[in-house]
Amino acid sequence: MSPDHTHSDIAIAAGDDVDHDESNPRPRAMTSTTTTTAEIDSAISHPGSVRINVQGAFIVDGTEQPNTPANGYANTNGSYHEGKDIRLPNHTAVVSHVAVDIGGSLAKLVYFSREAHSTEPGGRLNFHSFETDHIDDCIEFMRHLKDNQLALNGSRPTDLCIMATGGGAFKYHDKIKKALGVDVLREDEMTCLIIGLDFFITEIPREVFTYSETEPMQFVQPETDIYPYMLVNIGSGVSILKVSGPRKYERVGGTSLGGGTLWGLLSLLTPAESFDDMLDMAAHGDNAKVDMLVGDIYGTDYNKIGLKSTAIASSFGKVFRMGREAENEVEDSDHSVHDDPSRDRQKQDPSDTTTTSSSQPKIRADGASRFAASDISRSLLYAISNNIGQIAYLHSHIHGLSHIYFGGSFIRGHPQTMNTLSYAIRFWSKGQKQAYFLRHEGYLGAVGAFLKRQPRNWGRRGSFEGDGAALEDRLRERNGSGGGQEMSL
Amino acid sequence: MSPDHTHSDIAIAAGDDVDHDESNPRPRAMTSTTTTTAEIDSAISHPGSVRINVQGAFIVDGTEQPNTPANGYANTNGSYHEGKDIRLPNHTAVVSHVAVDIGGSLAKLVYFSREAHSTEPGGRLNFHSFETDHIDDCIEFMRHLKDNQLALNGSRPTDLCIMATGGGAFKYHDKIKKALGVDVLREDEMTCLIIGLDFFITEIPREVFTYSETEPMQFVQPETDIYPYMLVNIGSGVSILKVSGPRKYERVGGTSLGGGTLWGLLSLLTPAESFDDMLDMAAHGDNAKVDMLVGDIYGTDYNKIGLKSTAIASSFGKVFRMGREAENEVEDSDHSVHDDPSRDRQKQDPSDTTTTSSSQPKIRADGASRFAASDISRSLLYAISNNIGQIAYLHSHIHGLSHIYFGGSFIRGHPQTMNTLSYAIRFWSKGQKQAYFLRHEGYLGAVGAFLKRQPRNWGRRGSFEGDGAALEDRLRERNGSGGGQEMSL
Repeated sequence: MSPDHTHSDIAIAAGDDVDHDESNPRPRAMTSTTTTTAEIDSAISHPGSVRINVQGAFIVDGTEQPNTPANGYANTNGSYHEGKDIRLPNHTAVVSHVAVDIGGSLAKLVYFSREAHSTEPGGRLNFHSFETDHIDDCIEFMRHLKDNQLALNGSRPTDLCIMATGGGAFKYHDKIKKALGVDVLREDEMTCLIIGLDFFITEIPREVFTYSETEPMQFVQPETDIYPYMLVNIGSGVSILKVSGPRKYERVGGTSLGGGTLWGLLSLLTPAESFDDMLDMAAHGDNAKVDMLVGDIYGTDYNKIGLKSTAIASSFGKVFRMGREAENEVEDSDHSVHDDPSRDRQKQDPSDTTTTSSSQPKIRADGASRFAASDISRSLLYAISNNIGQIAYLHSHIHGLSHIYFGGSFIRGHPQTMNTLSYAIRFWSKGQKQAYFLRHEGYLGAVGAFLKRQPRNWGRRGSFEGDGAALEDRLRERNGSGGGQEMSL
Repeated sequence: MSPDHTHSDIAIAAGDDVDHDESNPRPRAMTSTTTTTAEIDSAISHPGSVRINVQGAFIVDGTEQPNTPANGYANTNGSYHEGKDIRLPNHTAVVSHVAVDIGGSLAKLVYFSREAHSTEPGGRLNFHSFETDHIDDCIEFMRHLKDNQLALNGSRPTDLCIMATGGGAFKYHDKIKKALGVDVLREDEMTCLIIGLDFFITEIPREVFTYSETEPMQFVQPETDIYPYMLVNIGSGVSILKVSGPRKYERVGGTSLGGGTLWGLLSLLTPAESFDDMLDMAAHGDNAKVDMLVGDIYGTDYNKIGLKSTAIASSFGKVFRMGREAENEVEDSDHSVHDDPSRDRQKQDPSDTTTTSSSQPKIRADGASRFAASDISRSLLYAISNNIGQIAYLHSHIHGLSHIYFGGSFIRGHPQTMNTLSYAIRFWSKGQKQAYFLRHEGYLGAVGAFLKRQPRNWGRRGSFEGDGAALEDRLRERNGSGGGQEMSL
């Protein structure tokens, strides 16, 4: 039997978070959130037989021990279980698919599980990531899910269907299909990103937030009047999408300077073993040790064009010259040892005692050792984030978009990254545009693929690939009476 | 006596290069250029007493042994004499100033010298650069010029005046003034860039060119109808200026990812000792060894959004994963040595023999050694150049500018850099905008400061800081009768 014939109707409904208080300046991301009886009950239904009941949905606190299959699965090789499951307390029906978004660096997995070992009703959406290089681990995990389908969600192992998106959905399609013996359906990456983002924006309380140093995590209430907006998805590389309506999008730009650039360069320049190592180091670094600031060039502000002395004029701009100084000092040391003081040259910073030993070969590793890994990490994080922020702003200006959502696994909830992106948008737009972040920023595509599961009677109530008229109807309905219980995505 | 009271009238006139043939696809940059009898004689005169006679001016072939003081001065510490002097065969009057543009990484010097040891009449503009870290060498060179003022240009040593711009004009002002005992006049950096660029665009034949792989160096005839245009000046950092008329400019943007970033990171990652080493390495590298291409993620093109499989999805995107592989292999080697084959893991690319010795510590230098310096250099050069190209395009689009001039010492006439910048502009603008380059790209500010020398009777014929009405008059005159012999800049 084909998987397309096995899933039952699935209905998940969500209640808006009426407890949400925009005026509360404290971050509430780390506190457990239970939703009140929803003022507005709603449902997302796939056309036809697939319905997702999101009533009462909320994000589970990261400190709560998740009741997920991940607990029984050894985390190796960068496999990572997110601590931000979305609880679906009212969902009990069978789910027979999992979704995976396989990017250049990370494979992101979303799957549903019942609260099997708990007295709690319903189930939850689980979020799990793997390094794409260890795609075999990801496949093994999906095999683990397949083998436990009955306990997880009432489905049979042979009924499992994999919804795959991202470049790896194409590159690894045959490999996954062969390894698991199940159907692997490929979905367009950009379309899935937008479906996932629309879901998070419109349905999940305490998902979307703004960031600033004074108000680190200011949640935005789920809303329905969301178009047009811009999505800046930062994975290994960066894609910038203009979204003018449901499923109406255009990739307007992008840059190859993304997460892969940060991770790749820092893996060469620092002892960091993981992305999170790098972010931890960056948190303690001082970019002014490697960046050339306006003040380093001018000795003061450059007031005429409004550049402060602390503005970064050149990322890593101090490295080349300081590396040369280091070499000169090594040469000096050598000559001193050989009792040839006549060749001593001026040392511009005699207080600097980090000069490398003269016994070491004069290779570039000497230069790298002069600079702290934390400073290098901070500088590169700033450079990449600032650059993405500027390019995002310029595209948003050209297309007249004031809401800019940042998604993708580059961000990882890292305060400095979000602060830099937010600041860049505020700076360039003179406060006219706003950066938004998401707690599940890395899972937009995977969630979109999960939601895009095509039902058996696909197309009966209108094409999923259409112009989004169904979602528009849903939004209109909510904006009007607010009484719509089940609407089509 | 103050230097302001010593210089005589200086008149230099230039003839347009009527021999210029736009339809000739061959590069002519490396051939010696002599100007014909000019159809349009012209002159640039500073208001009042300073006049620069550019009649018959031409760029001297780099292979010709220059008759400059630089020959008697030892080149050390990155001091560099450009081989592209501008011959001013009709200029014989006294010049009593030199100009220096001191940036974050390089100090660029422009000075006039008579053809003292030659039977040739007139003189030439000389171009010389120093690393800003060796500003003392630059000052010594200026002292050398000062001591030889009489032979160089008929002035007295005590009459010398330094026109200084760039951030270092402020940072090193007192140092230079004290060391040389002469006046040091500070000029605004952006203003000087524009004055210098206007001069090169409008007056110097075979200075400005376009670049493409099929037509590497296509010269553009000097023209007068030049506004509005955009200048992207790439030094340690990048400034982007919108120029709407003579002296009418606005700094609309910039990025900290510039030359300093390239030089800094490559000095950490490669054995290169100089900027030119880095460019030489980049010329032989293959960025696909370190960059993640669309095809690496998809296994094919991503046709839906028009991304070819060879497009760079993530700069350095292969490095992190390959570095991890290398570590795994090192671990494997260790275990093999200790006779523990059970812990051998899969080697994804057994043909790769560059694995580091297991006797080495597992530091990042191992990772770096896995990647060729040439491949790293090529990747970073592409990344920085593409990024500048995209940002430049976006600003030009917002401001409606179709002529984009690239200046600054980052370019250094390097074919791949120019090709990448040109391609980026063509790609993003769908062929609607054009990138222009200059043979003296690094000296815009220095030449601008040189030309900005204020005469004794400053302001008599109109303020230099005015709205450029004088230049506009000049341009009108040229566009009209073409008979104007002397015009104000």
